[in-house]
Amino acid sequence: MVKINLEPRTFLFPMPTTIVGANVNGKPNYVTIAYCGIVQADPPMLSVACHREHYTNAGIKENQTFSVNIPSEEIVEITDYIGLNSGKKVDKSGLFATFYGSLKTAPMIQECPLNLECRLHKIVDIPGRDELFIGEIVAIYTEDKYVSNGLPDINKIRPIIFSYGDHNYWKVGGHLGKAWSIGKNYRPLNT
Amino acid sequence: MVKINLEPRTFLFPMPTTIVGANVNGKPNYVTIAYCGIVQADPPMLSVACHREHYTNAGIKENQTFSVNIPSEEIVEITDYIGLNSGKKVDKSGLFATFYGSLKTAPMIQECPLNLECRLHKIVDIPGRDELFIGEIVAIYTEDKYVSNGLPDINKIRPIIFSYGDHNYWKVGGHLGKAWSIGKNYRPLNT
Repeated sequence: MVKINLEPRTFLFPMPTTIVGANVNGKPNYVTIAYCGIVQADPPMLSVACHREHYTNAGIKENQTFSVNIPSEEIVEITDYIGLNSGKKVDKSGLFATFYGSLKTAPMIQECPLNLECRLHKIVDIPGRDELFIGEIVAIYTEDKYVSNGLPDINKIRPIIFSYGDHNYWKVGGHLGKAWSIGKNYRPLNT
Repeated sequence: MVKINLEPRTFLFPMPTTIVGANVNGKPNYVTIAYCGIVQADPPMLSVACHREHYTNAGIKENQTFSVNIPSEEIVEITDYIGLNSGKKVDKSGLFATFYGSLKTAPMIQECPLNLECRLHKIVDIPGRDELFIGEIVAIYTEDKYVSNGLPDINKIRPIIFSYGDHNYWKVGGHLGKAWSIGKNYRPLNT
């Protein structure tokens, strides 16, 4: 087994494909973001990294709110379109049916099966291309048809997986096992 | 389309399944983490959120280094085992063939197709259960057999997708499209 080195880049597998929403100049704006991850279990918090040049950033700062919307396979084309076109040049406010939740200023997408409404907790000071926003997830919106046993069902949501580097979108595939469970069968060689 | 509310929890889809490595008390220790995401494109940085009680955290702080290892489908059982058993009770140093890179103190897993060697950049002060570590990715290790056109190939790596809530592991499925490309075909209704 010979390991080789690749140039250090953001090669995390898999990455999510999300649509981040913020009101900018009084209108909903949406941008496609794969640089998103959970950063705190309780209270639930996530991070979103946005290019400092992105149109969205000013809206997050102004309102101190934003949303993370999980698109499904069916809307992969418009999801990519949103990432290709900046709000500086294209008015994206009419692309989806927008709704608002308890925070009033975080626009969310009706057509996405899952919506995470976030209050900006802090902007983390790190050097580089992107600004790093940490948000507390204050509400989750979905529809009955995406839920099983009271929980979001990945097979009903059908989220879009992003592969960085070759830049492709992928479906979720077959079941591998139950977490915090299948490892109980594992026996280390030395025991 | 009627939206319903779910209790706010960390419902991001999909999440990665990673194995975070750190030297603790002079020995490699590994813990399974889904709370991991990219936080900066350039220089490449990622975040890892670990329960404040985790055995790993002290090692990251002591050495100021850690690794993020991407397991493949084949090792899903041991990946789950690692998450079920704390380094406080189980010596996990012999479960894998460990190697070290340029930082010298970030243990990495030979059996994982992709290894991200990280220098701790900062610990972000957020309230809650987990500590949030931000690391700069200083090196990427893989094998020729996981690479296509000079880039990691998700279909060769076969990473494990984690679904939070129902807690399951999933494979990567079929191809949906080329990112920053298929959206070029999309035409908004109003143009």
